[in-house]
Amino acid sequence: MRKVYLDNSPRFDALDQWLKACAFSIEKEIINVEDALHRVTSEAVYAHNSNPNFQASAMDGIAVKAYKTYEASETNPVQLEKDQDFTPVDTGDPIPDEFDAVIMIEKVNYTDDGHAIIHHSVGPGQHVRAIGEDIVSKELIITANHQIRPIDQAAMLAAGVLEVSVLKKPKVAIIPTGDEIVKPKKDPARGELIEFNSTIFKGYLTEWGAEVTVFDIVKDELQIIEQALAHAANEHDLVIINAGSSAGTEDYTVHAIKNIGEVILHGIATRPGKPTILGKIADKPVLGLPGYPVSAWLSLDWFAKPMVYHLRKLVPPERPILTGILSKRVNSVFGSEEFVRVKVGYVNSKLIVTPIGSGAGVVMSLVLADGLITIPPELEGYDAGTKIDVELLTSPELIKNTMVGIGSHDLSIDILVDEAKQRYPKTRVSSAHVGSMAGLMAIERGECHFAGVHLLDAETGEYNRSYVDKFVKTTPVKLVHFVYRQQGFIVAKGNPKGIEKIEDLIRDDIVYVNRQKGAGTRMLLDYMLRKHRISASQIAGYTREMFTHSSVAASVAYGAADCAMGIRSAAEAMDCDFIPLYEEQYDFVMTESFLDSEQGQMFMELIKDPTVQKRIESLGGYSCRDTGKLK
Amino acid sequence: MRKVYLDNSPRFDALDQWLKACAFSIEKEIINVEDALHRVTSEAVYAHNSNPNFQASAMDGIAVKAYKTYEASETNPVQLEKDQDFTPVDTGDPIPDEFDAVIMIEKVNYTDDGHAIIHHSVGPGQHVRAIGEDIVSKELIITANHQIRPIDQAAMLAAGVLEVSVLKKPKVAIIPTGDEIVKPKKDPARGELIEFNSTIFKGYLTEWGAEVTVFDIVKDELQIIEQALAHAANEHDLVIINAGSSAGTEDYTVHAIKNIGEVILHGIATRPGKPTILGKIADKPVLGLPGYPVSAWLSLDWFAKPMVYHLRKLVPPERPILTGILSKRVNSVFGSEEFVRVKVGYVNSKLIVTPIGSGAGVVMSLVLADGLITIPPELEGYDAGTKIDVELLTSPELIKNTMVGIGSHDLSIDILVDEAKQRYPKTRVSSAHVGSMAGLMAIERGECHFAGVHLLDAETGEYNRSYVDKFVKTTPVKLVHFVYRQQGFIVAKGNPKGIEKIEDLIRDDIVYVNRQKGAGTRMLLDYMLRKHRISASQIAGYTREMFTHSSVAASVAYGAADCAMGIRSAAEAMDCDFIPLYEEQYDFVMTESFLDSEQGQMFMELIKDPTVQKRIESLGGYSCRDTGKLK
Repeated sequence: MRKVYLDNSPRFDALDQWLKACAFSIEKEIINVEDALHRVTSEAVYAHNSNPNFQASAMDGIAVKAYKTYEASETNPVQLEKDQDFTPVDTGDPIPDEFDAVIMIEKVNYTDDGHAIIHHSVGPGQHVRAIGEDIVSKELIITANHQIRPIDQAAMLAAGVLEVSVLKKPKVAIIPTGDEIVKPKKDPARGELIEFNSTIFKGYLTEWGAEVTVFDIVKDELQIIEQALAHAANEHDLVIINAGSSAGTEDYTVHAIKNIGEVILHGIATRPGKPTILGKIADKPVLGLPGYPVSAWLSLDWFAKPMVYHLRKLVPPERPILTGILSKRVNSVFGSEEFVRVKVGYVNSKLIVTPIGSGAGVVMSLVLADGLITIPPELEGYDAGTKIDVELLTSPELIKNTMVGIGSHDLSIDILVDEAKQRYPKTRVSSAHVGSMAGLMAIERGECHFAGVHLLDAETGEYNRSYVDKFVKTTPVKLVHFVYRQQGFIVAKGNPKGIEKIEDLIRDDIVYVNRQKGAGTRMLLDYMLRKHRISASQIAGYTREMFTHSSVAASVAYGAADCAMGIRSAAEAMDCDFIPLYEEQYDFVMTESFLDSEQGQMFMELIKDPTVQKRIESLGGYSCRDTGKLK
Repeated sequence: MRKVYLDNSPRFDALDQWLKACAFSIEKEIINVEDALHRVTSEAVYAHNSNPNFQASAMDGIAVKAYKTYEASETNPVQLEKDQDFTPVDTGDPIPDEFDAVIMIEKVNYTDDGHAIIHHSVGPGQHVRAIGEDIVSKELIITANHQIRPIDQAAMLAAGVLEVSVLKKPKVAIIPTGDEIVKPKKDPARGELIEFNSTIFKGYLTEWGAEVTVFDIVKDELQIIEQALAHAANEHDLVIINAGSSAGTEDYTVHAIKNIGEVILHGIATRPGKPTILGKIADKPVLGLPGYPVSAWLSLDWFAKPMVYHLRKLVPPERPILTGILSKRVNSVFGSEEFVRVKVGYVNSKLIVTPIGSGAGVVMSLVLADGLITIPPELEGYDAGTKIDVELLTSPELIKNTMVGIGSHDLSIDILVDEAKQRYPKTRVSSAHVGSMAGLMAIERGECHFAGVHLLDAETGEYNRSYVDKFVKTTPVKLVHFVYRQQGFIVAKGNPKGIEKIEDLIRDDIVYVNRQKGAGTRMLLDYMLRKHRISASQIAGYTREMFTHSSVAASVAYGAADCAMGIRSAAEAMDCDFIPLYEEQYDFVMTESFLDSEQGQMFMELIKDPTVQKRIESLGGYSCRDTGKLK
């Protein structure tokens, strides 16, 4: 029952094979230069006219015959007769044929009867804008295979070239397949998955210069898929089909391509992205992309991008690369090239690279990713602290202006992220949710500017201070009060199972959903369990970990679990009931250098802003009565 | 009569003042997410649905109730009853409410009567794609002021968000003014200048995300200009007027803006670009750009670009920067920030930066420029050899693959440039025309891969070899035969002035046009003058220098000169007559390291290609009988 791929090819080899196998060229067309922006010339462009095509004055003054000025000097003024020997000209005026030089207005005196008196000689061509100074007619102005920029359009127009021969835009067909997928809608029924991959493909392909047609969704039937492929290959230069590119029994794509064309490769030695098919139908390249959005996005970039640029006879642009320090270990499988989404930010002038640990089905991981790191197939991962290259997905300008937060998840952080972006569009707040303890460790290691923490000291009943003192020893930090918030049990609307107290969690009919190790909320639960002498193993679902308050609340709301511990705002957002247990203190541990910086001051202004505080309190269960105070 | 500007402001100060003075915001609009690519969110986007919004199987297998599997082990198989205890599921299938975990198909055995036998327990949630694994409903998914990428569109669609509130595109009006300018046409009359600046502006503004309207050309009359400005400011978010931004008597722009709005600044401390006007009309920013295309292009970049990005609440992207070595001194004026167009290429792993010495009216200088260098106002230039930052205008990928030629101009080089681009789209040949001697110096200093030279040894009658031996001492080079070509006098069609021999050049009615010092063609003329004992001062126009064969031929063709020395192909291209004097040898001096490199081999293949040679010979006056031979 294991999936069997034909191949496990390194991706550059695979790309080479595919490019070589699909040997056809895009046709040319002649279009107006005014419409040719970003198109690619199919042949050299030669000037039709010279620019300028007449001798023009480069100064305000008089046009003269140079040889009539040769005798002029400070001691020997020469008198020139109007029309015969000179004529007045302004900058840009054509110079009549009989004249060949210009004397600046400042150097001319006039007699009362209109003669010009000069004390300087000029040579032929002086202060004259020569014919063809810019462009000489018949000269090559643009080569073939050149992507036309605005300045190239201008040069062509200046040279009297109004039409240009360009390569047609590569036509790309996108065929979405699958019985369970539906067009985007507001409220999909249970079992319906929204088809958004084609929107991703269309957007990037358009940026790369293709003309994209998205087909209607095709059912998972071999014959229908074959028909769609044949139709698409007939009218397009590249066909992309998604998905069914895996090697399961219901994955028809590879069979459909084989039946009407040729499968060149099935299976790439990458993770994610392995279930990729490279094929062709009558010389037209066909690309079968994986179903998971992250896999599909990567594979699109590896194969569709170079194919489109190849058809356009252009070099694909490379992403900017920055070198940073990996903040935690990433593992990979030997023999596969591994691609890891990361967040990055500068902390104390070091670029900190933090892996995003999501699966290939999580489209939000790409929304949040600032870059990609690559682990070569011969390695099994990189250790924390490794110096590593990051291919950027976010602009370097924005990365320079990122305030980096690592720590516990709270819905109010989303509000800070949004408000920061609204007030200071050139900066951003980046926040990674890894739990309070991991946040403390990160700030101690110099990997973030601030950490959101809510850690109860079981002995003193105090929040956060003792943990900071114990775990943050080398980095100078301040503890800044952020919010009070209510922690408690999130249960389904109306509390159908009557959950009231901690002891209810061990009931046979109760499935719990937990937060990850190191999360303050989990530590609070563990503290309560110890207090009530309850063993974790007695709770069904204790081992099921989620990373945010929202996720556990969603699990309860949709009936996947009966109870979770979390904050009131998450319960209210998901229309769940809430049984309050504690008022927590959620604070920020901030490095002193951040607090003293311009960005740190922005951040403090932000959290002290009454509008921001009002927006946070309206989430439910929050109090900002001490927000912004140093503890 | 000198031009008087109000100001001479550093450009960043000027920009700040302008941005502060024009305090208005772009309106919002709600559009379909599918149409929102590259638009900017005007507010935060929250998820409407969770994705997935049902528990889905992450494996092919059976959905089970986890607690019914707890007893299962290798030694204690558990039997499950179909429908009641389990149901088969494929990857992506919804899991019925009564089940909470999935067992992989590989770990299930079936009895003959359809019961499932398992030997492993699973916990709740195992192999289950949780509700909200990707996106939890009500969660913030995109902040305000975020430029929407394809992946953001996908996240919104996945979350059931079909419409999004975005900032409207900034509307920009472009008003071309001038009595002498005309819309692009094939054959402008004498005195007509083609208006191509608005095409440059429109192209870049479109790239920056603006919606551009180009007005009809407006005559140079104060009242008409005022009307156009008022109309434009009424309906647009930014008004660009070009030109008349200088301070001469016929430059009305500044007066027109003052009359109906406010001039914030007139005159920027830059060269080129000084004649810029920053103003506003009823809070709408107005930008008066200089007439010369290079000045206008720079000023557009300094002011229109940040204004458009400011209105879009985005950070303007910065150009990539490379550090290189300046190959020759550039001068600048103290007190002005100077911008110099440059060509760049890697030679022996060093990035060589060569200034393009053209005026601000030469649009081709921007077509050919790879980058810009900036000389700060407190300096008067940079010496050759200075380490300098280059803002790139060409893609770094193409710069890496550039074959750098510096030397004498020949029309056949244009053909090589074009043919190289056709055969090897990922590479390019860059060629700077500075004359044979300057080419030799450049190769000796390690600043190019090859130099085109045609230098006659007056003593031996031999071409090139003795010069290479004398001037190239430290760089190992080879001399490669390129073409034989005819040098002679270029005269007007029909030779109306009956020019036959060198002595004719001193006639009173003959105006000559010369090539620049160090050009092989000029050295050939000087050689002939010495031989005939003619003094250069006897020749009208001897001091008038041009840099290419095409330019001098154009001067003759348009009647600006009577005679020039040059190659037959240039005469033929300009439909001039040609009086042959010499068959020259135009050769390439190549560094050995280039000749041994992959690129060098490509280059050699190129010049040996019969198709290329045929194209060269068809220019007229060329012979490729020895092309590609080592001399």
